[in-house]
Amino acid sequence: MSLDPAPLLAVAREEALLGKSEGGVPIGAALFTVDGELLGRGHNRRVQDDDPSMHAETAAFRNAGRRPHYRDTVMVTTLSPCWYCSGLVRQFAIPHVIIGEARTFSGGHDWLAVNGTGITVVDDPECVALMEEFIAARPELWFEDIGTSE
Amino acid sequence: MSLDPAPLLAVAREEALLGKSEGGVPIGAALFTVDGELLGRGHNRRVQDDDPSMHAETAAFRNAGRRPHYRDTVMVTTLSPCWYCSGLVRQFAIPHVIIGEARTFSGGHDWLAVNGTGITVVDDPECVALMEEFIAARPELWFEDIGTSE
Repeated sequence: MSLDPAPLLAVAREEALLGKSEGGVPIGAALFTVDGELLGRGHNRRVQDDDPSMHAETAAFRNAGRRPHYRDTVMVTTLSPCWYCSGLVRQFAIPHVIIGEARTFSGGHDWLAVNGTGITVVDDPECVALMEEFIAARPELWFEDIGTSE
Repeated sequence: MSLDPAPLLAVAREEALLGKSEGGVPIGAALFTVDGELLGRGHNRRVQDDDPSMHAETAAFRNAGRRPHYRDTVMVTTLSPCWYCSGLVRQFAIPHVIIGEARTFSGGHDWLAVNGTGITVVDDPECVALMEEFIAARPELWFEDIGTSE
């Protein structure tokens, strides 16, 4: 993939910060074309909409609307995608995922890589700090968001 | 799992038929407790809501609302769950999935089984007929729904 990850990740990070400002889980994502055109952006809306299905990647995918296929797209997310969001990427054959960080949580990105998805882990300090602060402040909300109660 | 799959699958099938009557992708699902209490039910809403993320299992999960964990739940779906919906089951550690049929489409249920999810495939002729009829009538919509354009 020839796209510079930085400006794409900046959009996902803006979404994460918006989620934080709303009192939600601070994870953001966006779907772009491989040419850098923004198709959809979104953030986790568990708290805001009382919706456990609205992880950031799903929100971005949803906001991009219906498409016949995703062969020309790139998903960018501030955090390693959980199994749910990794399954989204695999099912819709999104060819590349840019990940802000995978230190505070590691989902299915290695599984995606093995199955042919291009993976770029930026290891962005701002994304790490955002999650570390959130997990320390709201552990029960974080564990709820990833389906573990402790 | 000691629950009889038949009445649970009947609820998912009702949802699929509702989706069909709305002109949508005829796949339905429901989330129950292991004691048979209905938590949420839903059907694919790609067409109805122009929402590519609203697969049946996600719709049922969403309609069940926020929960601290899913250790005591069973997902029932008319069709083998795609990777997206299989990822949902794995991430939220839903311990059992009842599947109407896996003839017309086989998603991630073998992967779930290998990773510890209990899987019951009913092989229900009504579920098979519903999908066969739909795929023959609306192939382009079906391929869009599973992220392949041919």
